[in-house]
Amino acid sequence: MFKQLALPATLLAALSGMTGAAHGDEGQWQPHQLPQLKAELKRIGIRIPAEQLADLSKKPMSAMVSLGGCSASFVSPDGLVVTNHHCAYGAIQRNSSAEKNYIVNGFLARTRAEELPGGPSTLVYVTDKVENVTDRVLKGLDNVGGKARHEQIESRVKALVAECETDKSYRCAVPAFHRGLEYYRIRQMMIRDVRLVYAPADMIGNYGGDIDNYEWPRHTGDYSFLRAYVGKDGRPADPSPDNVPYKSKDFLVLSAEGLKAGDPILVAGYPGRTSRYKLPSEIRFARDTSYPAAVAEFQADLDTIAAATKGSKNDEVRYASVVKSINNRMKKTQGLLDGFARKDIAAIKDVQDAEFRAWYKTSSTRSQPNVSAAMLAELDAAIAADMALEQQTFAWNVATNSDLFKSARSLYRLALERKKPDAQRESGFQDRDLAMIKARLTRLEQSYVGGVDQARFTAGLQRYAKLPAAFHPQGLDALLPKAADVPALYQRSRLGDTATRLALLDADAATLERSDDPFIRLAVQLNDFALALEERSKESEGNLEKVIPQYMSAVIAWKKSQGKPVYPDANSTLRVTFGTVDAYSPKDGISKGPFTTVEGIVEKHTGKDPFDAPAKLLEAIKAKRYGQFKDPVLGTVPVDFLSSADTTGGNSGSAIVNSRGDLVGLNFDSTYESITKDWYFDTAITRAIHLDIRYMLWVMKEVDHADNLLQEMTIRYPKK
Amino acid sequence: MFKQLALPATLLAALSGMTGAAHGDEGQWQPHQLPQLKAELKRIGIRIPAEQLADLSKKPMSAMVSLGGCSASFVSPDGLVVTNHHCAYGAIQRNSSAEKNYIVNGFLARTRAEELPGGPSTLVYVTDKVENVTDRVLKGLDNVGGKARHEQIESRVKALVAECETDKSYRCAVPAFHRGLEYYRIRQMMIRDVRLVYAPADMIGNYGGDIDNYEWPRHTGDYSFLRAYVGKDGRPADPSPDNVPYKSKDFLVLSAEGLKAGDPILVAGYPGRTSRYKLPSEIRFARDTSYPAAVAEFQADLDTIAAATKGSKNDEVRYASVVKSINNRMKKTQGLLDGFARKDIAAIKDVQDAEFRAWYKTSSTRSQPNVSAAMLAELDAAIAADMALEQQTFAWNVATNSDLFKSARSLYRLALERKKPDAQRESGFQDRDLAMIKARLTRLEQSYVGGVDQARFTAGLQRYAKLPAAFHPQGLDALLPKAADVPALYQRSRLGDTATRLALLDADAATLERSDDPFIRLAVQLNDFALALEERSKESEGNLEKVIPQYMSAVIAWKKSQGKPVYPDANSTLRVTFGTVDAYSPKDGISKGPFTTVEGIVEKHTGKDPFDAPAKLLEAIKAKRYGQFKDPVLGTVPVDFLSSADTTGGNSGSAIVNSRGDLVGLNFDSTYESITKDWYFDTAITRAIHLDIRYMLWVMKEVDHADNLLQEMTIRYPKK
Repeated sequence: MFKQLALPATLLAALSGMTGAAHGDEGQWQPHQLPQLKAELKRIGIRIPAEQLADLSKKPMSAMVSLGGCSASFVSPDGLVVTNHHCAYGAIQRNSSAEKNYIVNGFLARTRAEELPGGPSTLVYVTDKVENVTDRVLKGLDNVGGKARHEQIESRVKALVAECETDKSYRCAVPAFHRGLEYYRIRQMMIRDVRLVYAPADMIGNYGGDIDNYEWPRHTGDYSFLRAYVGKDGRPADPSPDNVPYKSKDFLVLSAEGLKAGDPILVAGYPGRTSRYKLPSEIRFARDTSYPAAVAEFQADLDTIAAATKGSKNDEVRYASVVKSINNRMKKTQGLLDGFARKDIAAIKDVQDAEFRAWYKTSSTRSQPNVSAAMLAELDAAIAADMALEQQTFAWNVATNSDLFKSARSLYRLALERKKPDAQRESGFQDRDLAMIKARLTRLEQSYVGGVDQARFTAGLQRYAKLPAAFHPQGLDALLPKAADVPALYQRSRLGDTATRLALLDADAATLERSDDPFIRLAVQLNDFALALEERSKESEGNLEKVIPQYMSAVIAWKKSQGKPVYPDANSTLRVTFGTVDAYSPKDGISKGPFTTVEGIVEKHTGKDPFDAPAKLLEAIKAKRYGQFKDPVLGTVPVDFLSSADTTGGNSGSAIVNSRGDLVGLNFDSTYESITKDWYFDTAITRAIHLDIRYMLWVMKEVDHADNLLQEMTIRYPKK
Repeated sequence: MFKQLALPATLLAALSGMTGAAHGDEGQWQPHQLPQLKAELKRIGIRIPAEQLADLSKKPMSAMVSLGGCSASFVSPDGLVVTNHHCAYGAIQRNSSAEKNYIVNGFLARTRAEELPGGPSTLVYVTDKVENVTDRVLKGLDNVGGKARHEQIESRVKALVAECETDKSYRCAVPAFHRGLEYYRIRQMMIRDVRLVYAPADMIGNYGGDIDNYEWPRHTGDYSFLRAYVGKDGRPADPSPDNVPYKSKDFLVLSAEGLKAGDPILVAGYPGRTSRYKLPSEIRFARDTSYPAAVAEFQADLDTIAAATKGSKNDEVRYASVVKSINNRMKKTQGLLDGFARKDIAAIKDVQDAEFRAWYKTSSTRSQPNVSAAMLAELDAAIAADMALEQQTFAWNVATNSDLFKSARSLYRLALERKKPDAQRESGFQDRDLAMIKARLTRLEQSYVGGVDQARFTAGLQRYAKLPAAFHPQGLDALLPKAADVPALYQRSRLGDTATRLALLDADAATLERSDDPFIRLAVQLNDFALALEERSKESEGNLEKVIPQYMSAVIAWKKSQGKPVYPDANSTLRVTFGTVDAYSPKDGISKGPFTTVEGIVEKHTGKDPFDAPAKLLEAIKAKRYGQFKDPVLGTVPVDFLSSADTTGGNSGSAIVNSRGDLVGLNFDSTYESITKDWYFDTAITRAIHLDIRYMLWVMKEVDHADNLLQEMTIRYPKK
């Protein structure tokens, strides 16, 4: 399809003296890879030296932080952090009440003293060290597969983490890269006193709500401010009034000078998970089996929740975030399916895979005949086995769709694991994980209603019963309760009570085995089955972990033979991607983006949620009080914009910086047509959606009068 | 709302050395007005001198013809005419059969001998004379109003027509301009032997069908070719094998050089009807009363037809064109309502009206005090009375929604009128109209099924009964048949038979009054009522015809005082409008157009009507056989494009010419957002949809191999 809006971008580029249309696009690069892309970075107009970008101790990377699931950046020397509104939502919510509804009205601390506690889930992680530990993880495992390999890797990773976390200020992780070909140990300082500083009204920060989720045109002011606090010694500390703002020596300068179509941008953040190196068979499994099943399951669960909460405002509110999350995952999964229907990605991958296999057979035959054929056969077998197992794991999840059961299972598993020395425990149940488990068991009270959970569990059991035979794991059917028996479980269980759940955190296995709570009993009864399923899963993963790195190694060699660097799939570690401010054509004769403007807010305003813009915002727009934030081309204040940068979930809140490294936007979403990018990056239609920092600054100045924060930050204004 | 795509147009204009963005837009100008717009024409880049454009005997205007309801143009010296596919549809349909399905497969005459008769409804009108006859129509009527005025005008107009039509080669009309301020006598040579030369397959010429009607992006190849034939003496003649092609000395040269965004274009054609000078009260009546009622009526009628034809493929086909026409009118009416909801046109007009009234009171007070107040009071009263009457006329139409009744009424009315001398007969029932009446009575057989007509009549009577009291004309209720009695009418009537209908064409009134056909009896029975309603209508029209011209005269003086020329509302006479090739923004963050490309055809192709593109077309696109028709900017063959020109229904088939007067496109539709332009021209969003002549030429060359026609026409190709 012809992309019409290439035209203005090109023209603008031509007029602004650039030597060609900017580029960038695909690639979530590890910072240390950037020097390999030096020429490309320079060509698209990034003026920050690649070596500087690769150095985590230097700006701008030293200012980029993770919130755990979201990205953010420091914007003042006093630990001020800017991220998305939806990333700070938990912190806003926990401080809100009917009287002080900060969600609806927004919140602004005019002094440090007014800043509010973000709560235990609001954390700031500053990545300070990245080491390649591949040898330590994989040494001697070349020919080991199955569960043995998986457990060896787990135990070495745990040791590497423990070694790193001797200093309790740090949180360490050893994620796999390139599907297990490489392992890096990432050390992050974890700041655990993080406070809410400023959030705009929900109908600015979440304007358009779920209706506009994944959509363009977008008019969401998706930003909020937090502040990191540490002990007086400058080290992370538990929340305390004695703590002081973290001294973030490196922070981003904000630029109100603005971008225009064709400008290069750079995004730094913590993308969660992509599947770019999946084989055609894996794509077909997702497309034809696992995703359709998941969408049906999401929809059925949503229907159950809707029916069970109907008529009770209280129940609806309790499940609002659950519903939002399921909706979001369902829209994403459906978007992937729509994308697969639109473009035959499996066929594209077939071609690539065939090319690779042809190359591989020739290239490896020279040294070791038969190696390539054997590896490819092993690869295909391991994947096929894993797909079969995935169906059963899915069925297990359908059959156990109960928050009370999950809590019981978590408690019993914890008790079992605690019998072992810490280092040998299953990851997720070590001492380091206790706070997380406790937080989860506590937080449940905000999104749990007995009757609704009962309805979900019952409906899940009924759906499980109807799944095709291949989905049913051997032995499970007989162990599950009958749907008709479920009400009695809920009548007799006391796990719906938070204190009861927390009290059981310290119970040992024998105590739990004697419990008469029906959900604890069910957890005990299903334990052998669940552990067996886990064992099978480890076996399968071990087999994949043996052969997939060989495959990836060959793929990288193949790409290298074509002169192409290879970035690893996203894995929630710090990455850099770059691209161009650019419109796109969803279909012939239509162009979308790259900018929206404040006038579009008025256009969408209906007075009803999620299009109920605050009166003061509408008034400022209608009065055209654009101030210094008026874009010279658009003639008004921009709100959101599109770029071709390569992002995914986890990149929410990521800093968008211009060619000089100044903050010009915040990433917060992608267009619907882009959802398939997690599997295949289609340059023509993939666009990430960013907040234009000028809109944020304009709201701060003209609408919310957040002058204290505007003062605190360093802002570059356009020359008059 | 900011219009983003102003940008590329401006940039392109800047790059191509133009001194500013082209303009044009509002105004359906009478050719003789164009010299007043000389400066504007020159400024936007039209190189044809305004005086030449005003001269109907000179190119390009001498090549512009009417088909009666559609527009067209000569494109060879041998009477070859190009127009829209949907304008030649009747001619294609009447030559089609199950064996030779020219609708589905298209038709191409490779020699003149193969050209097919277009039938009695396919006519070519060449405007050759336009005279201002205002004085002869209005002399002495300054103070005459009501029916007397209306009848005086009618009789003078008839005399002027009769005087002009002494030469039977001509068809004359004396339409009112500026709502009755001026009258022009238009003489058109009527060519009545018109043959079908070439039509592409329906899935090219009508690609997208009703789904894409009024929509953009559009991929319709809406073109067909006809040829005008005359007697050997060069004068119009009845269809005959002895006729010869009309020597069209002036014809348009086609240009395959193409347009780009920002280019000026000129459209010449026969726009049907606009309401740009309506008062705010008239707009409110349409918005709040008559249009909502009309939409409800269209929908109800469609539902009735759908229910009555259900299960019979034959009945569905018979009513296909009726359904299409109702759908089209409903979509247009609904589009107007949507537009009224989107933009408060009444409020805009309120402001203009208040400004005008303020100016008028001051300006007219100087010479004749009280005149202005009296005129404005008379104006408002005449409009209010007319609106009240319009409701009752609407109700009458709802109550008589029967093709058999309409046929009977037409026959009886004709018999009554025939008692009078021809010149005194009601217009529409004069000798000159006989052929049309006969054609209508004949054509009915193609779209009539007794059971369906019965269902429509019954449902209409039931809807009539439920209309509010203000809609019910006094005396009508008692005269109408009961819904329950309708089946008996259809059982006993023989008017469903074409021969019976035609046989009654010559019957005198007395004969019909003795008829036992229930529909003839009903027509006789309702005649007094219907005539009385007509009388009331004439009275009302006469009152409007007295005061509205005074109002328009004042409005024109007011506009003149601001230096603005005033074009009259469209009235199916030859007009010229000019504009710019331009995209538009239907909402913030989205831009549509200005071009679509052949790749979009593939994108829309589903294999199912109306998106079932012919295999040979798809094949040519996929093979990228663009030939000389590849646009240098788009990199492919354009299909349709948008311009800001001012068009409306009747402009279908109008020639789009470039700055030099070469044919570059054919008008065929407007975007949905533009529908309100009939009432108010909003420059920002109003766009007409045109076929790009390069697509037509490309299909002719690469798909249909219409080499004989490509040879016959003069085509300017781009320089290599």
